[in-house]
Amino acid sequence: MVSIREVGPRDGLQNEAPVPTDAKVRLLDALSATGVRRIEAVSFVHPKAIPQMADADEVWKRARRAEGVRYSALVPNLRGADRALAAGFTELEVVVSASDTHNRRNVNRSTEDSLTDITALIQAVHAAGGTVEVIVATSFGCPYEGDVAPARVAGIVERVLGDGADRVAFGDTTGMGTPRRVRELLAAVDQVRGAAPVLLHFHNTRGTGLANILTALELGVTEFDASVGGLGGCPYAPGASGNVATEEVVHMLHDMGIDTGIDLERLLEAAALAEKMTGRELPSGVLRAGPRTRLTAQ
Amino acid sequence: MVSIREVGPRDGLQNEAPVPTDAKVRLLDALSATGVRRIEAVSFVHPKAIPQMADADEVWKRARRAEGVRYSALVPNLRGADRALAAGFTELEVVVSASDTHNRRNVNRSTEDSLTDITALIQAVHAAGGTVEVIVATSFGCPYEGDVAPARVAGIVERVLGDGADRVAFGDTTGMGTPRRVRELLAAVDQVRGAAPVLLHFHNTRGTGLANILTALELGVTEFDASVGGLGGCPYAPGASGNVATEEVVHMLHDMGIDTGIDLERLLEAAALAEKMTGRELPSGVLRAGPRTRLTAQ
Repeated sequence: MVSIREVGPRDGLQNEAPVPTDAKVRLLDALSATGVRRIEAVSFVHPKAIPQMADADEVWKRARRAEGVRYSALVPNLRGADRALAAGFTELEVVVSASDTHNRRNVNRSTEDSLTDITALIQAVHAAGGTVEVIVATSFGCPYEGDVAPARVAGIVERVLGDGADRVAFGDTTGMGTPRRVRELLAAVDQVRGAAPVLLHFHNTRGTGLANILTALELGVTEFDASVGGLGGCPYAPGASGNVATEEVVHMLHDMGIDTGIDLERLLEAAALAEKMTGRELPSGVLRAGPRTRLTAQ
Repeated sequence: MVSIREVGPRDGLQNEAPVPTDAKVRLLDALSATGVRRIEAVSFVHPKAIPQMADADEVWKRARRAEGVRYSALVPNLRGADRALAAGFTELEVVVSASDTHNRRNVNRSTEDSLTDITALIQAVHAAGGTVEVIVATSFGCPYEGDVAPARVAGIVERVLGDGADRVAFGDTTGMGTPRRVRELLAAVDQVRGAAPVLLHFHNTRGTGLANILTALELGVTEFDASVGGLGGCPYAPGASGNVATEEVVHMLHDMGIDTGIDLERLLEAAALAEKMTGRELPSGVLRAGPRTRLTAQ
């Protein structure tokens, strides 16, 4: 069993041209009906910084939440955490970049300063009964600094787990991940993570998305982010393309006999919906060609 | 060391809208200067069947052949083999589909009948001093029949090697290959191939191209086809998209410390040329985003 977290509604749509609230609710509802167990639903960020998520409260209020699905929200800071908790979320995510330059370009402060903020955020969220996942961006490389030492990422993991973080995730923010980098990162992180699960988030910028996931699977990782239709990218990172497409991940895993709980046909319907609402051809081979089991009439 | 055979000039361009002879020669020359050791240069097919290759003789006559590069030509039959040999090729390739339905749709005869033709072709080419590689198409699945039993592919390998074929290759004609199918096929083929090398040819139709190559590498395969810029597809197979892009393969391999002899920057120049001549955006992430080592100014 592999646990996929669907990030299209948040990470995906946040990095596309804005779509109407109605469409976001429809996409969330379609995804909730696929059998996926985890969905990153919205982010509570400042509407001036990210207008795509200005209607997060309304989207979440109107979404039909499915039994057995864990919904999470991304928050940039304490104020966002308060909004997420008030909206009823208990699973919160916060991002910090392993690369100092990327962190400064993203939130105008050093990695160290962000980590200090995160310490306080974890305490506040825990006090309110929620959990916090720390997502380490640029874990596989930084578009400004180049390679990021796995030891640096491991140091961040050690610190945030010490601060009480409930989970850690690793973002391949601009698609610099490769099988080699996956191996090297996991080796370093395994030294410090204790029993904390690892979730990996890949972009398919350079074609290595599924190769990275395959490598991580062989090393025992069982949690992955993916974005329906390959929605999204990264607005702060030049040259970034979309997240790995959920249906491509599920298609490969199911063929390997690995269950995800997801109905691929329903997922493809959601991907078609996502494509329609963005108005652009999404980078998903399985959406385009169909699963390998879909035969052509002779 | 991994041996890449660049198939863009033949398999790639054969499945794009026709481009002028000049452009084909320029692409071949650009590829010959990348350090790649093998190039599938042209095919000698009937110009009415495949107008894209009608100028094969002229392209080949005008191309600047580089020292140390092995050039090969695809031929459909004895007549094509005669033309290829007359043009000076010594490495010939011939295709047969493992799936009977696909073979019939492709060349209007059964797999069995094609194998009989290939027996005669091998004899004729050997008599003229050339070598023959048999490419088994639909080795990882057929768009009409679905899964193709690895034992069926292995049976074809056994037969053509018995008939004197010098090499065998396996085509993922419509991108139905997955890590699982690669494992299963190689296990079956390893039973019968003896010392004959195995070359794998993947399409990235469903995102698994590099994951398939990674799996094959782990199983000891060291020869792969790839197409510059991801040029090409398959005209006989609905839903097929382009070959795995050479620069994506090389980018991943070099990051793993595996040499290919190829200069990635020169290859990217050739990919840009390929994109320009087709007039469409080619499906190559590394062409789009650049290698992971190409940093953004801060």
